[in-house]
Amino acid sequence: MEKIKVISPATSANLGPGYDIFGLALSEPYDTITLSRSGGGISISVKGEGANKIPTDVDKNTAGVVVREIIKDFNIKEGVKIEIEKGIRPGSGLGSSAASSAGAAFAMNELFNLNLSKLELVKYASLGESISAGFPHADNVAPAIYGGFTMVVNYNPLEVLHIPVDFEVVVALPDIEVSTKKAREILPDSISLRSMVNNVGKACGMIYSLFKKDVELFGRCMMGDSVVEPYRSQLIPGYLEVKEKIKDLVYGITISGSGPGVIIIPKEGKISRIKEVLDEVWACPVYHTKVGTGIQILERN
Amino acid sequence: MEKIKVISPATSANLGPGYDIFGLALSEPYDTITLSRSGGGISISVKGEGANKIPTDVDKNTAGVVVREIIKDFNIKEGVKIEIEKGIRPGSGLGSSAASSAGAAFAMNELFNLNLSKLELVKYASLGESISAGFPHADNVAPAIYGGFTMVVNYNPLEVLHIPVDFEVVVALPDIEVSTKKAREILPDSISLRSMVNNVGKACGMIYSLFKKDVELFGRCMMGDSVVEPYRSQLIPGYLEVKEKIKDLVYGITISGSGPGVIIIPKEGKISRIKEVLDEVWACPVYHTKVGTGIQILERN
Ligand SMILES: Nc1ncnc2c1ncn2[C@@H]1O[C@H](COP(=O)(O)OP(=O)(O)OP(=O)(O)O)[C@@H](O)[C@H]1O
Ligand SMILES: Nc1ncnc2c1ncn2[C@@H]1O[C@H](COP(=O)(O)OP(=O)(O)OP(=O)(O)O)[C@@H](O)[C@H]1O
Repeated sequence: MEKIKVISPATSANLGPGYDIFGLALSEPYDTITLSRSGGGISISVKGEGANKIPTDVDKNTAGVVVREIIKDFNIKEGVKIEIEKGIRPGSGLGSSAASSAGAAFAMNELFNLNLSKLELVKYASLGESISAGFPHADNVAPAIYGGFTMVVNYNPLEVLHIPVDFEVVVALPDIEVSTKKAREILPDSISLRSMVNNVGKACGMIYSLFKKDVELFGRCMMGDSVVEPYRSQLIPGYLEVKEKIKDLVYGITISGSGPGVIIIPKEGKISRIKEVLDEVWACPVYHTKVGTGIQILERN
Repeated sequence: MEKIKVISPATSANLGPGYDIFGLALSEPYDTITLSRSGGGISISVKGEGANKIPTDVDKNTAGVVVREIIKDFNIKEGVKIEIEKGIRPGSGLGSSAASSAGAAFAMNELFNLNLSKLELVKYASLGESISAGFPHADNVAPAIYGGFTMVVNYNPLEVLHIPVDFEVVVALPDIEVSTKKAREILPDSISLRSMVNNVGKACGMIYSLFKKDVELFGRCMMGDSVVEPYRSQLIPGYLEVKEKIKDLVYGITISGSGPGVIIIPKEGKISRIKEVLDEVWACPVYHTKVGTGIQILERN
């Protein structure tokens, strides 16, 4: 195989009480990544959403880091050309950097027939995330690779649990900047035991609801986070207003990743009214999509 | 119906990262509770394990409180005689007070044909627990009523989620006193966000494993509690020694409730060697049992 083109989806991490653990693959938006064998070295080109904010230096681009690490570990003698078409705005809370990391790992596995497992792909992809998030976070790359819903239940060794899931979601992307650093700093250093117990209970209720296919329970428990959301909602002007206005139209609404992206689980037949409210408050891009199945191959030759 | 006799099982609450939420019904040990319609007022008699440590004053006995509340709410004109035969040592961490609370609620429902749901029975039973635990804790009474595995994911309103479960357990009851008050006080007032994330992940891993019937994953995640167990293990001399000596013989071991009871999920064929170690370190009562199905009716007439 000389060349491979893949679709790598946006992902929504945290989902309330699942902070730093849960992740959901979306069908839209998505990046398109093309890898081709080349003479020597690694080259990167980026176009599309926020491309100007994305470095093309191998060691500073999440896809570049992943390709570099795989080339090193598998002693690949050839070069690789990376072409990224960004469909996911960087710093959106929709896993933009993760889409590139995961897409690159997946594509390298196919291009050089490396036979890597999904878990190994997540490990390589999270190396890419360590440059954008400062830590090899797996909570966005995991759903990008596995699709559906994932939980990162351990690091060192990395352990990812996957649940296939299928329901509608609405994602809003307010035109607001939320620095990941600020979103981390606003969080409390320590929390009460009661808060931990609340979040453990709500998070476990979400896992239970996925196996029981009870989207109402899933949404209700997702909104039960008493630790992270109360702080991060302050960083997204209009969020609490939207949350109040659509509370009877949805099973749940929460902040996607560190925001400003917002993920909504709509009730049947309420999409248009939800869109009206989003338009009224934010007048921003809105994706009416459903849970995705992860990275897909578009072309290979 | 004039009289009803029920078996009310021991239960193991917390199970590591499920602190204050998870509960498991055991088949052994158990209390036997007999309720009979009587002329007037409520009378209580207690015999068996630790009976001398259990008050027979209605307002101080968990079964008495439950019966009193039900009589009041349903305007029952008759009296009730409560006979409790304790098979579960009080203050054992095996839900001794809860067994009486839950058994009384269940038996009243049958005796007076009140048509209460399981959730309502748990609500009444947790009233009994408020006198022994100072708070209407449901994490022991819930598995006693539902059987199998339960999660108390919310209070006010009370929400209990149930998963039918079936695997072997070994329960050891060291002859040690652990005051519930001390077991609460030894816990930290606040914990780091990282610790919460660890416990949420491990607890969710346990729920996942129950649906997947993966007892190895269940035990491993159960032992992943980084918040409560490190402190409470200090209150049970010999616990860390036992934990070390049997680590290759078990899927998991943790403290039951606030201890000193210890719950062990044994690997196949390792029971006798586990018992040897328990005998060597504690020489205490050991129950080789399995997850129970909750309260059972023995007789009614
Ligand atoms: N291929 C890439 N695609 C997107 N961002 C990249 C890429 N390579 C490096 N980056 C850098 O990563 C940062 C965006 O990552 P960040 O984790 O902050 O946002 P996100 O991934 O969109 O959101 P979240 O991770 O909260 O879902 C930007 O600063 C960007 O410069
Ligand atoms: N019917 C009862 N059975 C047992 N204990 C009772 C009962 N009624 C009141 N009590 C009191 O409750 C206390 C025991 O409850 P406690 O919650 O401390 O232990 P436990 O229920 O055995 O353990 P855990 O709740 O940690 O599993 C004792 O002080 C006892 O006097």
